Amino acid sequence: MNNKDKKIKPGIRAEGGAKKVPVGLTQEGLEKLLAKDAAITVKELEEQADELAASKVFEDDPTLKQEVLEANLRLASTGLAPLTWGNVSQRDKSGKYMLIKPSGVPYETMDTEDLVLVEIETGRKVWGSKKPSSDTNTHLELYRAFPGIKAIVHTHSKFATIFAQLRRDIPAFGTTHADHFYGPVPCTRPLTEAEIENDYELNTGKVIVETFEDKDPLAIPAVIVGGHGPFTWGSSAKKAVDNSVALEACADMAWHVLALDPDHPPVEQYLLDKHYFRKHGENAYYGQ
Amino acid sequence: MNNKDKKIKPGIRAEGGAKKVPVGLTQEGLEKLLAKDAAITVKELEEQADELAASKVFEDDPTLKQEVLEANLRLASTGLAPLTWGNVSQRDKSGKYMLIKPSGVPYETMDTEDLVLVEIETGRKVWGSKKPSSDTNTHLELYRAFPGIKAIVHTHSKFATIFAQLRRDIPAFGTTHADHFYGPVPCTRPLTEAEIENDYELNTGKVIVETFEDKDPLAIPAVIVGGHGPFTWGSSAKKAVDNSVALEACADMAWHVLALDPDHPPVEQYLLDKHYFRKHGENAYYGQ
Amino acid sequence: MNNKDKKIKPGIRAEGGAKKVPVGLTQEGLEKLLAKDAAITVKELEEQADELAASKVFEDDPTLKQEVLEANLRLASTGLAPLTWGNVSQRDKSGKYMLIKPSGVPYETMDTEDLVLVEIETGRKVWGSKKPSSDTNTHLELYRAFPGIKAIVHTHSKFATIFAQLRRDIPAFGTTHADHFYGPVPCTRPLTEAEIENDYELNTGKVIVETFEDKDPLAIPAVIVGGHGPFTWGSSAKKAVDNSVALEACADMAWHVLALDPDHPPVEQYLLDKHYFRKHGENAYYGQ
Amino acid sequence: MNNKDKKIKPGIRAEGGAKKVPVGLTQEGLEKLLAKDAAITVKELEEQADELAASKVFEDDPTLKQEVLEANLRLASTGLAPLTWGNVSQRDKSGKYMLIKPSGVPYETMDTEDLVLVEIETGRKVWGSKKPSSDTNTHLELYRAFPGIKAIVHTHSKFATIFAQLRRDIPAFGTTHADHFYGPVPCTRPLTEAEIENDYELNTGKVIVETFEDKDPLAIPAVIVGGHGPFTWGSSAKKAVDNSVALEACADMAWHVLALDPDHPPVEQYLLDKHYFRKHGENAYYGQ
Repeated sequence: MNNKDKKIKPGIRAEGGAKKVPVGLTQEGLEKLLAKDAAITVKELEEQADELAASKVFEDDPTLKQEVLEANLRLASTGLAPLTWGNVSQRDKSGKYMLIKPSGVPYETMDTEDLVLVEIETGRKVWGSKKPSSDTNTHLELYRAFPGIKAIVHTHSKFATIFAQLRRDIPAFGTTHADHFYGPVPCTRPLTEAEIENDYELNTGKVIVETFEDKDPLAIPAVIVGGHGPFTWGSSAKKAVDNSVALEACADMAWHVLALDPDHPPVEQYLLDKHYFRKHGENAYYGQ
Repeated sequence: MNNKDKKIKPGIRAEGGAKKVPVGLTQEGLEKLLAKDAAITVKELEEQADELAASKVFEDDPTLKQEVLEANLRLASTGLAPLTWGNVSQRDKSGKYMLIKPSGVPYETMDTEDLVLVEIETGRKVWGSKKPSSDTNTHLELYRAFPGIKAIVHTHSKFATIFAQLRRDIPAFGTTHADHFYGPVPCTRPLTEAEIENDYELNTGKVIVETFEDKDPLAIPAVIVGGHGPFTWGSSAKKAVDNSVALEACADMAWHVLALDPDHPPVEQYLLDKHYFRKHGENAYYGQ
Repeated sequence: MNNKDKKIKPGIRAEGGAKKVPVGLTQEGLEKLLAKDAAITVKELEEQADELAASKVFEDDPTLKQEVLEANLRLASTGLAPLTWGNVSQRDKSGKYMLIKPSGVPYETMDTEDLVLVEIETGRKVWGSKKPSSDTNTHLELYRAFPGIKAIVHTHSKFATIFAQLRRDIPAFGTTHADHFYGPVPCTRPLTEAEIENDYELNTGKVIVETFEDKDPLAIPAVIVGGHGPFTWGSSAKKAVDNSVALEACADMAWHVLALDPDHPPVEQYLLDKHYFRKHGENAYYGQ
Repeated sequence: MNNKDKKIKPGIRAEGGAKKVPVGLTQEGLEKLLAKDAAITVKELEEQADELAASKVFEDDPTLKQEVLEANLRLASTGLAPLTWGNVSQRDKSGKYMLIKPSGVPYETMDTEDLVLVEIETGRKVWGSKKPSSDTNTHLELYRAFPGIKAIVHTHSKFATIFAQLRRDIPAFGTTHADHFYGPVPCTRPLTEAEIENDYELNTGKVIVETFEDKDPLAIPAVIVGGHGPFTWGSSAKKAVDNSVALEACADMAWHVLALDPDHPPVEQYLLDKHYFRKHGENAYYGQ
């Protein structure tokens, strides 16, 4: 008999649950739940806790579902994600959960109720009838490593993916790039055979985090995974998609610069500085 | 007097028809038909049998016409087939017939009733007032050789056709490719002068089949015909068009990779394996 | 006093008009016109004759205006002619007149009544309140030299124009090309300084005709003018625009083939023959 | 106490305002304003004068707001300015003010009332609740230096920006270019570190003006700023956007010409002359 299926009495602390009280459930909440039922399993408790947690998430952040849906649909309308090659997630207000695109649902029929709410720390689905995107573990790893990011986008946009296939960083050749990315957009090292064979999607996240060991993900809100494609992030699902649009435009132009001049030098550091600091920090003044 | 125009009596086996009873007509069906008419020609018999066969096809597969029409129209809306440079066909449930685009009808006015039903074994039209697509014999040959495929698409999509004109395989440079094609998409050898002069369209099918002698058409659901253009297939007309979209995106990116790095190496075999097996077979788990 | 303003009497042959009776006006028509007026100038006569001629053109060919308008608008919707960089004309049933796009009218507001009817032999406008397209003299010269063509299209479509700027023929690299053009699409020699300075548009026509001295304009319904851009033609305004679409697609692919393989060989002559003869002549059978 | 906040009496000339009477306010207007109030500050006076000036601008030029809005929205619909990477301004009838896009307002929700009216000589905002575009100082500098231009457009259109990143002029390779730009479109020198650090946007204008020291901005209504992107201008907001469309098309074709033939020669001077003079000056006759 699974520990989680054991009956427990109200007022008594769940044994199996003692070490792992469902995230988001206070001691008070636990007592309340237990009081309602003469006998309850830990599994049932968790389900009820998930339901409560999800209700609270959507109550605290009433536009979350709509924002995530719209950002996912924009991937289709901008052509950044042909077929279903892309996904967007966004953290809730508490920062503990992310709402993400479901797996294998075509953009044409996708609805807010198809989205999936996942607990970031544990990766547990807490709301939604569909399976979360297959890239869920990559998103989770990024949220865990980069506390400052609010939303993540993955696409197979053409030129960003071409740089990923070439396994090259995207150089900063002009102000369009400098306005969005404070230096070259880095390409990760390729994953090893072992990293691909087990926990592939999680390891994709880990190799991105490794690439940012000496970089600020808020200053360069994009990466390309070698042999795969781009991920971008931002302060909202909308901003993260904006960064995907900007990344694709910069990659497109960089490819064409390199095709005519393979050794073209990047822009000067002071230009990068100027464009970064006129948009970020206390002296920011820019909006086109 | 043509053998097929000879009058035959009910109850008596048609002489001309003895060796070639219309496909899909049982002995019982034959008797029934003969009983209705005091005298009937084999030709009339065949026409009636075709009508019956077509009725059964559309009864057993009530969405067939709509699926084939929509897939053909999608070629136009996705830009994969400028003017009328493309066609889609799909097998019926029995697997013995295919429904294909008519010849020379513009996409704007095309209707389900313009489609043409063709018997795969014989190539005989069994339903439809229009001529079937000029590429019909290529489709038929592929259905005969590859029993596992359900639908076929032919386009002149830009980058796939460029590789066809270059007479080069499309290398697998990234996961976008690996998610759809388990290895490079092969380019056929050019057809010989003799193969072009007689039965050109049939020979186009034969040279594709020859190219897959040592390949699995279900693992690599696409080919490019040297000097001509791409064919893709799949488990439905929709999936076969999805594969055309994927092929064009992969060819597009591969061209741009080769333009900057003519000797760029393909992705590792274990990456191909991972992406193939996470989508196919019993351990499949993927959906983006 | 201009000869054309002289008063003439009914029944009396117009002196100024003796050598140059308005085209399309029979002796009988002339008498009838003269009978109506006690005194009439040759200029008034010509205007009345033009009005009669135009009425007859539109009566004999009631869809002419609509076909020419739609073909011109299609240049905009297909992106072949950014801004107003393109024009389409079509001959009337008699073959003596062409209806062409007006000069400087934006596609968004263009109407059938903006079109202009021009007499091919003389270049005289016979109907319309607007000025005809500045490229009128190029169209006229082609109609005069190539009696078999029914409609002409001029665009600045991207890749055809790139070949014009490169001053190179567009090679036949595949069946897409072979289905429309029986061999390479030729690029004219550049115009000389004298040819550019006087009668520039007429000389543009002449240099095209010179280029086709040893070619059949019906087998290769397209040309690119060196340093300028493409002209195509066909059996109707719609077909001529189809040929512009096909030319642009072929030029696009050819550019990309040459970028990866500068010395790529053209397709074999027997492939060109097969594709030409399966669409043209008595053994034609093709429609995709 | 700020000089501008000093109370002044009607009939008495404002001291602080003596040297700097608000532009557009006549002595008579000043008296009228002063007569209305027993005591008024120079600051209040200026605000009232701005209001009066703006009313007069919009009264004299009733379509100004609509023209500027439409031109800005066209940047989005033509794809010349992804996200909000672009802006259009137009002078008023008097030539003393320009109406420009606001800063950071997305195209989807932009309205005529979001636009901002700025005095060209001083750079002072005289009407509008939003901040003017961050590129305002570049526009102002161009209006001051080039009295003949009526409207200015800035975009990050793809191929014009690629030439900016390559820091190369856009050569004149064909008649499409010659019809719009009388010679190569120049690329400015890069800005120095000092020019970037202080008054960056103003210095961007200055380096453009420097580039046109020996050129006629009306004959070549476009420039690309090295490492940044294009600016175009024209006799109206619409014409200036037309020039942006033309510039992008020419840059696109020029890139493709150079990719196949890096040393391709430009068109002959007499071709440039012919195309310039058939559209400009007293012998102009052209409209396609």
